[in-house]
Amino acid sequence: MTKEKKNKPSKELPLGFVDRQEKELLVRDYIISNVKEVMVKYGFQYLETPSFEYSDSIGKFLPDKDRPDEGVFSFKDGNKWLSLRYDLTAPLARYVAKNYLEIPKPFKRYQLGTVWRNEKPGPGRFREFLQFDADYVGTKSLQADTELCVMISEILEKCGLAKSDYLIKISSRKITDELFKKINIKDNQQKLTALRALDKIDRLGWGGVKELLGAGRKDKSGDFTKGANLKTEEIDAIEQAFKKKSPETEDLIEILKIFQDYNFKNFEFDPSIVRGLEYYTGPIFEVNLKFDVKNNKGEVIQFGSIGGGGRYDNLINNFGNFNAPATGISIGLDRLVYALMQKKKFELKQIKPIVICFFDKNSMKEYINVLTILRKAGISAEIYPGESKLKKQMEYANKIKSPAVILYGEDEIKLSKPTLRNLSSGEEKSIEIKGLVNEIKKII
Amino acid sequence: MTKEKKNKPSKELPLGFVDRQEKELLVRDYIISNVKEVMVKYGFQYLETPSFEYSDSIGKFLPDKDRPDEGVFSFKDGNKWLSLRYDLTAPLARYVAKNYLEIPKPFKRYQLGTVWRNEKPGPGRFREFLQFDADYVGTKSLQADTELCVMISEILEKCGLAKSDYLIKISSRKITDELFKKINIKDNQQKLTALRALDKIDRLGWGGVKELLGAGRKDKSGDFTKGANLKTEEIDAIEQAFKKKSPETEDLIEILKIFQDYNFKNFEFDPSIVRGLEYYTGPIFEVNLKFDVKNNKGEVIQFGSIGGGGRYDNLINNFGNFNAPATGISIGLDRLVYALMQKKKFELKQIKPIVICFFDKNSMKEYINVLTILRKAGISAEIYPGESKLKKQMEYANKIKSPAVILYGEDEIKLSKPTLRNLSSGEEKSIEIKGLVNEIKKII
Repeated sequence: MTKEKKNKPSKELPLGFVDRQEKELLVRDYIISNVKEVMVKYGFQYLETPSFEYSDSIGKFLPDKDRPDEGVFSFKDGNKWLSLRYDLTAPLARYVAKNYLEIPKPFKRYQLGTVWRNEKPGPGRFREFLQFDADYVGTKSLQADTELCVMISEILEKCGLAKSDYLIKISSRKITDELFKKINIKDNQQKLTALRALDKIDRLGWGGVKELLGAGRKDKSGDFTKGANLKTEEIDAIEQAFKKKSPETEDLIEILKIFQDYNFKNFEFDPSIVRGLEYYTGPIFEVNLKFDVKNNKGEVIQFGSIGGGGRYDNLINNFGNFNAPATGISIGLDRLVYALMQKKKFELKQIKPIVICFFDKNSMKEYINVLTILRKAGISAEIYPGESKLKKQMEYANKIKSPAVILYGEDEIKLSKPTLRNLSSGEEKSIEIKGLVNEIKKII
Repeated sequence: MTKEKKNKPSKELPLGFVDRQEKELLVRDYIISNVKEVMVKYGFQYLETPSFEYSDSIGKFLPDKDRPDEGVFSFKDGNKWLSLRYDLTAPLARYVAKNYLEIPKPFKRYQLGTVWRNEKPGPGRFREFLQFDADYVGTKSLQADTELCVMISEILEKCGLAKSDYLIKISSRKITDELFKKINIKDNQQKLTALRALDKIDRLGWGGVKELLGAGRKDKSGDFTKGANLKTEEIDAIEQAFKKKSPETEDLIEILKIFQDYNFKNFEFDPSIVRGLEYYTGPIFEVNLKFDVKNNKGEVIQFGSIGGGGRYDNLINNFGNFNAPATGISIGLDRLVYALMQKKKFELKQIKPIVICFFDKNSMKEYINVLTILRKAGISAEIYPGESKLKKQMEYANKIKSPAVILYGEDEIKLSKPTLRNLSSGEEKSIEIKGLVNEIKKII
């Protein structure tokens, strides 16, 4: 830091973090209220765990088990380490273990909360995001898994999407389990590397994935990623299995049947859905949007999924011997907000205050009188917060998109007749105080 | 960590962090919806800044300037330090500096967000809490300060409090400024130490405060806190000034006048309100609840304030030369929720689902049919998530406080007449499917 800058701190935000404005926040509030309504209808309990957990409570479940301290924000606290949660599933597992005797069994909860990832930031790559999670704990019933898919569909449609706007892709970890068994891969590390390779089909296509299943792959930048070292015939067997059009595992066959019972059709079997997390044990699903989404340069981007989930029957057992098979779904709310704002012209009105102009300190009582009348009628209003010239006050009112200003100067006060100036038409009217509310209601 | 425990992570939460349950969250949602409604009516913009800021952007404004790294959660990011925000004022100052050219002037925004304090945890001392802040930036008008007091009163009353349940205490930093000038204290460090001492009147009484204004004070544990080293006659002058019953500073005289214009009476002048933060420059206020609050042992506790604020005309200038005098208020929402839950019997109903019992996988379609009919009518319902014996299913339904279960076994399915068992009366009725919704609406 140079000397002259020493006393001026940075005005910038760290990469990966953003300020969010009113319009986005109102759309988010709208989505959240829909989420909550559907959650109540589906019988999920509302729960909130804190931002921090002991690192060891959530560390076991990191995507990359071999690098337990990477990817999370951790702090030394006395002789223990604390971490900011990187998802809402690991804290749920801790919560269930801590409260196992008290909770209903099965246990259904939903949570809305920020999660943090300590990853290399980049354009459009955030290090904090808002997630919505719903989980069933303590049941092996696959009806639970199907409910999660039906439920997220109801939320998306409640938010204004049509059936043609989204698709639930489903697969099962059993497919790769059976495949690895068949071609006799036993090494856990090798399995994980293979899974991570398969997770990249969307991005790299089969060409790149086959390199990663084999010796490895050099990317455009020249960086080399070590592969899973499978033999050519093993890779071919995997490719064949992944190109099947209908599922053959028992779990997916049952799920398809239950979907039929629900008359739920907005899904597709897609074995290339692998999802990176090693803890999945059964059906997995991914929620995809099918409409075009543009970046802030106006270019259509490959938007990818807004979330997904799956069955994780063994995760909670990391805390001890619990009977807690589980399935859950996570949705990235910021991503959903971003896409929805492009899809739908939201009717969410940003209500802006009527500005009562300020002329003279001694008339404050009169301004406050008008202000109170408007607010009591439920109208958003404010006295111009300051003592500027009228021109500046009008600039302010226009800047905040106020629908109208009230001019209540000395002469108007004498007559008890403020002037109402409509800022979109420019029209001015002199109105008795008792008629003000009705006149304003016509223009807001 | 012992060897046998090695694979079992902690099920506990770090001290200072808590899990929050549905009932509390619903009360919080209710308060937040009231806050948002009032904010719109008062013309405040909705804004959200991220959890993290560069440490130097917010570090200047720590309560203890001399210990910039204490009190916050910080970590190294490349060659810079990031910190979790410890309040919402410092990020607002950064936001205003960053966006000074674009924002309306004056600028009014509100924010709801978690803040973190890296302090020694203790019983009832949390390290993360939810705050609500509203601020005016860019105006010296004291009407802004009064609006904040009127506004918080409207929020509290909207949440169900009576005027006798709360009180806004006001004072001004000008009182101590003038006092320090009069008794000729110039050293900034000495002023701060004196202010911090005065901030403890509530807790220590004048006896303890006078020790802290003088040589120092040894507390019960034997810890010694160095004092401000003022002379006896200086301390006496401060005590005298602090015992005055009505304000003599210009700013407070004007504020009292504007309160009168608002017909706002629920305040009290109290010079012992100092508030620790060194950045206040004018009027300061504190929001106090006047009813008894109990701890979780049922003992009445000294609950203290739920928040406060004041004028800080120079804070934003730390980022450069901005014309940004400001005033703001912060409310601790978790504390408000805690107190309100004791004061008011909330009518917020926790809606629990009707449980459709599970008998046979082959009847899934029939269960789903009933489920869909109920949900379409807006009734919260679920199929028992699993395949347990009926006794277990009834235990579950009772545990989650379900209003009723639906028994739809083989015989009932044949007749298309499920049995509805009311779980509070124990009564059972056999009902045709088309009559189910009406029957359920009678009992929920």
